[in-house]
Amino acid sequence: MPTFHCTRRIEFCDTDMAGIVHFANFFRFMESAEVEYLRARGLSVKMVWEGQNIGFPRVSASCDYLKAAKFEDLLDVEVSTDQVGNKSVTFAFAFSRQGEAIAKGKVTSVCCLVGPGNELQGIDIPPSYRQRLLE
Amino acid sequence: MPTFHCTRRIEFCDTDMAGIVHFANFFRFMESAEVEYLRARGLSVKMVWEGQNIGFPRVSASCDYLKAAKFEDLLDVEVSTDQVGNKSVTFAFAFSRQGEAIAKGKVTSVCCLVGPGNELQGIDIPPSYRQRLLE
Amino acid sequence: MPTFHCTRRIEFCDTDMAGIVHFANFFRFMESAEVEYLRARGLSVKMVWEGQNIGFPRVSASCDYLKAAKFEDLLDVEVSTDQVGNKSVTFAFAFSRQGEAIAKGKVTSVCCLVGPGNELQGIDIPPSYRQRLLE
Amino acid sequence: MPTFHCTRRIEFCDTDMAGIVHFANFFRFMESAEVEYLRARGLSVKMVWEGQNIGFPRVSASCDYLKAAKFEDLLDVEVSTDQVGNKSVTFAFAFSRQGEAIAKGKVTSVCCLVGPGNELQGIDIPPSYRQRLLE
Repeated sequence: MPTFHCTRRIEFCDTDMAGIVHFANFFRFMESAEVEYLRARGLSVKMVWEGQNIGFPRVSASCDYLKAAKFEDLLDVEVSTDQVGNKSVTFAFAFSRQGEAIAKGKVTSVCCLVGPGNELQGIDIPPSYRQRLLE
Repeated sequence: MPTFHCTRRIEFCDTDMAGIVHFANFFRFMESAEVEYLRARGLSVKMVWEGQNIGFPRVSASCDYLKAAKFEDLLDVEVSTDQVGNKSVTFAFAFSRQGEAIAKGKVTSVCCLVGPGNELQGIDIPPSYRQRLLE
Repeated sequence: MPTFHCTRRIEFCDTDMAGIVHFANFFRFMESAEVEYLRARGLSVKMVWEGQNIGFPRVSASCDYLKAAKFEDLLDVEVSTDQVGNKSVTFAFAFSRQGEAIAKGKVTSVCCLVGPGNELQGIDIPPSYRQRLLE
Repeated sequence: MPTFHCTRRIEFCDTDMAGIVHFANFFRFMESAEVEYLRARGLSVKMVWEGQNIGFPRVSASCDYLKAAKFEDLLDVEVSTDQVGNKSVTFAFAFSRQGEAIAKGKVTSVCCLVGPGNELQGIDIPPSYRQRLLE
């Protein structure tokens, strides 16, 4: 399974009154890293693909927090495809700071056709999208 | 011009490492109070109104911060229609805590038709919407 | 184990371009519901308790998304203490809309002494805090 | 007055159900760009400077929105020091996309000593900080 690396600089507004990154923000960071992984392969989480308007709504997400991250920290983010099913994809994320593990998480999404009113219909991941995803 | 009152409880994630509400969050609070003002009149910021899909994208926003707000504070929010033009509406907001002024802000939006791909076209505020807005 | 109910009104800024609540926001909603649960018992996630400055940093969080939530939806939130250990507490959350299940999640936190520079030291949950938590 | 340029990639969670960047997020983007400006000069919005713990709480913020920004847009951000008083500093920000103006904003902050409980006391900007700021 391919892996991908990017970085994330912690912003002031990512912190809370405990002086550390608020735990919910790691889910934003995960999604952003997933989008970077996809962009590097010409893909996205919401796009027109071969004439179809597809999206990847999330069905589950989890994160374990090992060490606090702080304002101006530059985190390394490792993104990998943990599992790719017929209709769903699970990405795994490992956040670290100069080699020290900070957090680990997973996000699972399902492939959907997006209708004109944003209504969703689950479909198999298009084979050409899947192939690109796993490059 | 009519006024409206609601409250806002400060949440943990609204704070930042300075131990106070992050300044950008007041703009979320203003929008939410505007929506409550509108809901009390059967209106919204994005809705089907007399068969037209209308929205109110923001064209300007400002806030002055007088005192810090903190976790679990219960803020009073006074909402008033500052100005209602042909195509735009400006709401004014005053945040206070037990009578002490915390922040004051304004947000101006323009009335738009929203197309199927979310494209926007400025229009006059429908007269029936305007009338309800000023009740 | 005690349960608690509160509600959450979906705000415009909670949505994303898919027209539904962004998945990361459910973690904000969970924390806010936990704080309401605690407030109803005279407790909080960060407070001075019997002369000690204690906090509850999160060590893990997860959410399963069953149905999309939308702007202006009024969600019911059921909060329950899933597990209370010596040093940690896990809250479970069930979000529903008029009886329809929307999302289910869990958040685990550890009890810590908070030092003057916000440094954290894990401790046993004070017995009086634990007792109040389970009332 | 010196200027500084950085970029900002729009993330999925920056958007709202109107399909565009939610207006409140531009204030996060402004703060982040200010921090980048400061970091390039060895400064920050909250730091120990010559033995003093200083911070820059915001006293006013405003933004005019000219064109919508969308998911995956790469915005150029021009940061300039609009005004530097004895105790306050105003930064101006201009967001553009391939030369097209998107938004313009300003944020004014005051220099404060930060006490052990995060209490704030306004002070003159330290001369050495000011000098670095204007380099």
